[in-house]
Amino acid sequence: MRQYVLPQSFNGEPSLIVTGKESQYLVKVLRLKEGQQILGRDKSGNRYQLTISSIERNQCTLACQKLDEAKEAETTDELPSYGGPYPNLVLLQCLCKGKKEEQIVRQATEIGVTKIALVHSRYCVPDLSSKSDKALDNRFDRLQKQIKEALQQSGSPLPTVLIQEILELKNLPVWWNNRGLAIFFHQSSREEEQQTLKQLLQDYPIEKPIAVLVGPEGGFSEEECTLLEQGGFKPVMLRTNILRSETAGIYALSAIQVLMTE
Amino acid sequence: MRQYVLPQSFNGEPSLIVTGKESQYLVKVLRLKEGQQILGRDKSGNRYQLTISSIERNQCTLACQKLDEAKEAETTDELPSYGGPYPNLVLLQCLCKGKKEEQIVRQATEIGVTKIALVHSRYCVPDLSSKSDKALDNRFDRLQKQIKEALQQSGSPLPTVLIQEILELKNLPVWWNNRGLAIFFHQSSREEEQQTLKQLLQDYPIEKPIAVLVGPEGGFSEEECTLLEQGGFKPVMLRTNILRSETAGIYALSAIQVLMTE
Repeated sequence: MRQYVLPQSFNGEPSLIVTGKESQYLVKVLRLKEGQQILGRDKSGNRYQLTISSIERNQCTLACQKLDEAKEAETTDELPSYGGPYPNLVLLQCLCKGKKEEQIVRQATEIGVTKIALVHSRYCVPDLSSKSDKALDNRFDRLQKQIKEALQQSGSPLPTVLIQEILELKNLPVWWNNRGLAIFFHQSSREEEQQTLKQLLQDYPIEKPIAVLVGPEGGFSEEECTLLEQGGFKPVMLRTNILRSETAGIYALSAIQVLMTE
Repeated sequence: MRQYVLPQSFNGEPSLIVTGKESQYLVKVLRLKEGQQILGRDKSGNRYQLTISSIERNQCTLACQKLDEAKEAETTDELPSYGGPYPNLVLLQCLCKGKKEEQIVRQATEIGVTKIALVHSRYCVPDLSSKSDKALDNRFDRLQKQIKEALQQSGSPLPTVLIQEILELKNLPVWWNNRGLAIFFHQSSREEEQQTLKQLLQDYPIEKPIAVLVGPEGGFSEEECTLLEQGGFKPVMLRTNILRSETAGIYALSAIQVLMTE
């Protein structure tokens, strides 16, 4: 079921006027007509029954009714979708080039991660240390736009949050603070008796967070691996070829989701 | 371990001169120096020990020595990689826009599919029926280029083959001819007792082919689902959100590969 992500400024008002691109999405992309309905979600994840009350040139008006947890939304969109449960995935993605980063963030949101943070590590190609705050803000804005589009298109019930700062790899163990299982992907075995992904996830509670750290093109250095391991991060070698960073992240998220839900 | 895909014209000669972009890949991207070695693979999947015998401006010369099956290649590339076994995945991808198609083909090759075929179905947006043979050839050439790059970068031991025609969905059951398990992905359950991906793959021999059919943005029509089911294709609902076509394919391939190798 597709959904409409309500603007940040929305606070539960009974009616909302939507203009420009947003209106175009509802009227042109989803092809909603007057009287038709769609599920809305506000910034906190609350669900609203939205009804198109009028369509004018370049704007439309929505009637908004808050839904109880238990109540299904009426919707003219026929696509059903999986209703959960979802593992609580936190993607820690090492920096890569802008376009790839946008692709990763969009696809991770579609799959249903709860949080995404960008990480700077030794072999990252983009160097953002010399960038102005303005340039960084623009980068986060572009990623936020991808998240919004992906939430709408995928009907994900998880309002993916983008952490608004770039984390340093060496600070990850302290930042994660043992909230739950933390995994990093490496192209070779780190130790003789290294656990597989399946073994690590066996009997792990689905609602408990899992950190999924994906390296840059060049992987992690020996020192970084040791630091992560000492900080409680578990190394995993995927049983596949050498993947580019944008493929590795989606592969890892898909693999964890399927192992935990099937 | 990265590898170099030898040109189509290579027939086991002891020495090969490589020019232009190809030479650049070896010298600039992989940063190989005179005397250094890399694994080569020819069009049939045979392995060669390649040694850079000389580097000149815009070209380099390789000494090529065929390797026995059992023999490890000497290589200056330090990256190890998973050595198999791999499930025998055949991706049947419904047509989507050119750039997305290239991304899917590249990522599927990285993951290690054995074959890729493009499929025309009812809700496909691109209409190629009016395109000239020349335009279609160009499309296949672009995809072939993606495959070659992905094979080199990923070190995949499976020489991914692109089928050089566009299949019609209704002909798929006859084309597949019960070679092995065939799965198509659908956003809702088709029947009460539908099997999960895990159940379908349980005890399935890893070397036997599996067809993985991924729909276009709009999914499959009711008639198409019925036709596929009657032709022996099994419907699977992934336990995730509504994925775009380019995410669905990679998700499905990752999920099958991980379920069969872990």
